[in-house]
Amino acid sequence: MKKSPLQIARASYQPKLPKALQGNVVLSEGHATQSVADQEEIKNLFPNTYGMPLIQFKEGEAKSYPAVNVGVILSGGQAPGGHNVISGLFDGLKKLNPANRLYGFLGGPSGLIDHKYIELTADIIDEYRNTGGFDIIGSGRTKLEETWQFDNGITICKELGIKAIVIIGGDDSNTNACVLAEYYLQKQCGIQVIGCPKTIDGDLKNEMIETSFGFDTACKVYSELIGNIQRDANSAKKYWHFIRLMGRSASHIALECALQSQPNICIISEEVEAKNMTLNDIVNDIVKVVVARAEAGLNFGTVLIPEGLIEFIPAMKKLIAELNDMLAHNEEFNALDTDDEKRQYVKAKLTPESRTVYSDLPKGIARQLTLDRDPHGNVQVSLIETEKLLIEMVAKQLAILKGEGKYKGKFASINHFFGYEGRCAIPSNFDADYCYSLGYAASILISEGKTGYMASVRNLTAPAAEWIAGGVPITMMMNMEKRHGAMKPVIQKALVKLDGKPFQYLAAHRESWADANTSYVYPGPIQYYGPSEVCDLPTRTLLIEHGKIG
Amino acid sequence: MKKSPLQIARASYQPKLPKALQGNVVLSEGHATQSVADQEEIKNLFPNTYGMPLIQFKEGEAKSYPAVNVGVILSGGQAPGGHNVISGLFDGLKKLNPANRLYGFLGGPSGLIDHKYIELTADIIDEYRNTGGFDIIGSGRTKLEETWQFDNGITICKELGIKAIVIIGGDDSNTNACVLAEYYLQKQCGIQVIGCPKTIDGDLKNEMIETSFGFDTACKVYSELIGNIQRDANSAKKYWHFIRLMGRSASHIALECALQSQPNICIISEEVEAKNMTLNDIVNDIVKVVVARAEAGLNFGTVLIPEGLIEFIPAMKKLIAELNDMLAHNEEFNALDTDDEKRQYVKAKLTPESRTVYSDLPKGIARQLTLDRDPHGNVQVSLIETEKLLIEMVAKQLAILKGEGKYKGKFASINHFFGYEGRCAIPSNFDADYCYSLGYAASILISEGKTGYMASVRNLTAPAAEWIAGGVPITMMMNMEKRHGAMKPVIQKALVKLDGKPFQYLAAHRESWADANTSYVYPGPIQYYGPSEVCDLPTRTLLIEHGKIG
Repeated sequence: MKKSPLQIARASYQPKLPKALQGNVVLSEGHATQSVADQEEIKNLFPNTYGMPLIQFKEGEAKSYPAVNVGVILSGGQAPGGHNVISGLFDGLKKLNPANRLYGFLGGPSGLIDHKYIELTADIIDEYRNTGGFDIIGSGRTKLEETWQFDNGITICKELGIKAIVIIGGDDSNTNACVLAEYYLQKQCGIQVIGCPKTIDGDLKNEMIETSFGFDTACKVYSELIGNIQRDANSAKKYWHFIRLMGRSASHIALECALQSQPNICIISEEVEAKNMTLNDIVNDIVKVVVARAEAGLNFGTVLIPEGLIEFIPAMKKLIAELNDMLAHNEEFNALDTDDEKRQYVKAKLTPESRTVYSDLPKGIARQLTLDRDPHGNVQVSLIETEKLLIEMVAKQLAILKGEGKYKGKFASINHFFGYEGRCAIPSNFDADYCYSLGYAASILISEGKTGYMASVRNLTAPAAEWIAGGVPITMMMNMEKRHGAMKPVIQKALVKLDGKPFQYLAAHRESWADANTSYVYPGPIQYYGPSEVCDLPTRTLLIEHGKIG
Repeated sequence: MKKSPLQIARASYQPKLPKALQGNVVLSEGHATQSVADQEEIKNLFPNTYGMPLIQFKEGEAKSYPAVNVGVILSGGQAPGGHNVISGLFDGLKKLNPANRLYGFLGGPSGLIDHKYIELTADIIDEYRNTGGFDIIGSGRTKLEETWQFDNGITICKELGIKAIVIIGGDDSNTNACVLAEYYLQKQCGIQVIGCPKTIDGDLKNEMIETSFGFDTACKVYSELIGNIQRDANSAKKYWHFIRLMGRSASHIALECALQSQPNICIISEEVEAKNMTLNDIVNDIVKVVVARAEAGLNFGTVLIPEGLIEFIPAMKKLIAELNDMLAHNEEFNALDTDDEKRQYVKAKLTPESRTVYSDLPKGIARQLTLDRDPHGNVQVSLIETEKLLIEMVAKQLAILKGEGKYKGKFASINHFFGYEGRCAIPSNFDADYCYSLGYAASILISEGKTGYMASVRNLTAPAAEWIAGGVPITMMMNMEKRHGAMKPVIQKALVKLDGKPFQYLAAHRESWADANTSYVYPGPIQYYGPSEVCDLPTRTLLIEHGKIG
């Protein structure tokens, strides 16, 4: 297989480990833990895995461990560093006992259920060290939720002599990892389950998990592109760039990219919801900045838009809910001939509030809401090109202001969406080190017989040698939430906290960034070599949270 | 102004110079030159600048030069490295005589005409060393074509004591630089004009100019993204990514990106034209690959599409010409009410051949062709989202094949367009060195009293010390071409040569890249530090042209 010069060079990078993991390790266990909320219910649902202590790894004496076979699963969307979790796990296992073996289940959790796997040998691992992607064993979105799936897992684990499964995934996958751990304890089948915190979205994050892996690299790729576009905007001086960024519900990615690149505008969905803003409010906020910059002769700028925005606008959420109710299996609607008839039909049946929202939408978007529906008849919110929607509405508003003599600028726009460009990037040094350490930590948790834990590496704004590695009981991160109509125990999804320091930093600076005096920062591409302050820098979100940036 | 860690680190990078430029320089002049074609006409049009010798710089004795004031202009679209041409020019001028001064005309050629300028002092230059963008003095698209513009230039040059103007631009801007040089010689006003070869598109290139600056960096940025997307495609295994790439008419960018990343499919416009292919032919070629990969269980892939494709499809070109003729100031058409009526009107009036082409187009595209027209009533070809057009047509064809039982795969697609992400990237070491050397070379051409020359740096696949610097008479690159109905002397635009080595390399390998055995290469982000084979690599186009890759 042909490789680029950088692929070849990166293959020999040796990820940095916390000092405590560099030699022999001993476990330091803390007090019993509690779930973040709904303690009684979580305890009842997880009688065997609830209340376990926090674990911290420390330097210790040499110790011998019996050989174990381990299985690993990649779950959900790609995130840079997944291959390093696996190589850290592999190296850790081999160091603890050279007879340890690692199996990879293929194509995500379904590999466990359907018994699709390969043994991960040193030759295979070496091909994937410090690379992006999940292609070593593939990933998948099958959810491990049913007991028949768990039982299928037992069969293959017995066949392969597997004593532990590592699940690398986001909040839902780790919730399911804990359910699986609990089930296997209850069945006394001797299979441990360990989770690892993955997702570029950055929404698996709490007191014990400072960040999920992949967030660092993905944000750096997007920020590189945003910075390049800003330099272009500031050179050509004629375009407003509207840039939508992946990240599902939470706005962590948009926020981090804004902290790195200082755009003129960055919308934060969580703020939109908290302030009960309408789409028109958002548009008017943008228009104000466009007009102010035009008055200073600057007919260009940048706007960052989080992917999940639409669902956080209360009035839009209500409209979408009404449309979903109204149009599911609605034969009367489906029988209508023209777009116009359908539009009139919908308008007549909406509540007055939603009718206004619907009427204000550009025609193309309104059509998309009513026509392009998923197999269940639901509006496909993720397909809505919010950046184009906002451009159209901003342009319309500016035209009105121009007619009134209140705006004399020119508004030309370009739209972008970045997501797939970052999910499989070559991991930054930070993610390469962090992931390798997470995998290494998982190998120790396994060898020490732990289950229902998530591998954890903290103190991440210090040099890697000072990172603190250990394990966190997954139940500790759980609460009860309504999912598909029923209350479920789940790991709390972390949205952007409006009283958190990163958002506060944005709020304190965004007016000056919107300003006529262009404050763009140009992060440039991820560097793997060269000065440490360039190559080993964590996200600005982490630096601000840890008080390293004021 | 706040800066990223990489911005700070790059500020101190010292670009590498060819050995001949490192000390004192002497000029070696060759024989009289000829234009590449139409020698008599070009000679008649450029009596004063025709036939001048090639110039090569060699190491020589120290020499003293009288002080000169110089003006510099950035013309046209941004390209990474423009700031380094200016810093090389500045450093070169200061070394030749510390009393030399450099002025920058603001906002492109219009700065010369309208007398907008700043003096570029060491403080300003230092802020922009090794940075992307053209923001140091801005750029613009005003064409220097009229004598009143030239005369306005004389006025400001006299006022500022400017003896030479450096124009950093693409083929048209360099053509105009030569017209200006000729005019100033004819007027005996003592103002020299020197050109520098700029454009990410890579279409300013010939025997003497191996590549235009910015092409290297832009292609590396796009290839980083394509590689990341390919790793994602190969991990998720469920999407076909259709990626359109900037580059105007020529397919150099798409070709270079393909050579770097080895996608499943790369369309080359020049080949489409040479083979007289229709849109359906292109679609069928893609469909064949999709079907073959699906049979091997691979329902994913990548397709690179050059921006200029549509104009190279002979049948589309004919259709567009007919539409432009038919609809310009057509009140009858404009008075029609609905899209359907307009569609029928157009269909009735097209030639049978074009009618078929028009009828085969997806409705949305057909609508765009007839409705979204520029102020002159012309179809806006550059706005056509070719990647979406191809996706729609491929999906339609696959649905037919599925119905016939000839295709059993799944086709899900994602579209991308990359352009603005690369035009202002931080220049690669190659572009930083190349541009600095070009600017430095320009300073010597000026001090030696030359005019009508383009700065030239060759032997670019050797280490920078071995590069060959000098000057090329611009008339040497010219021929007569029809522009807006009249024959004009212009620098020959370089399209992809189908008998050239880079295309031949693609042609020899693309079947295996399309193949079931995924051959993706992942270039990763541009590196400025680290191993030289990673950091200082020129484009694969150059390496192949120079026989360094077989």
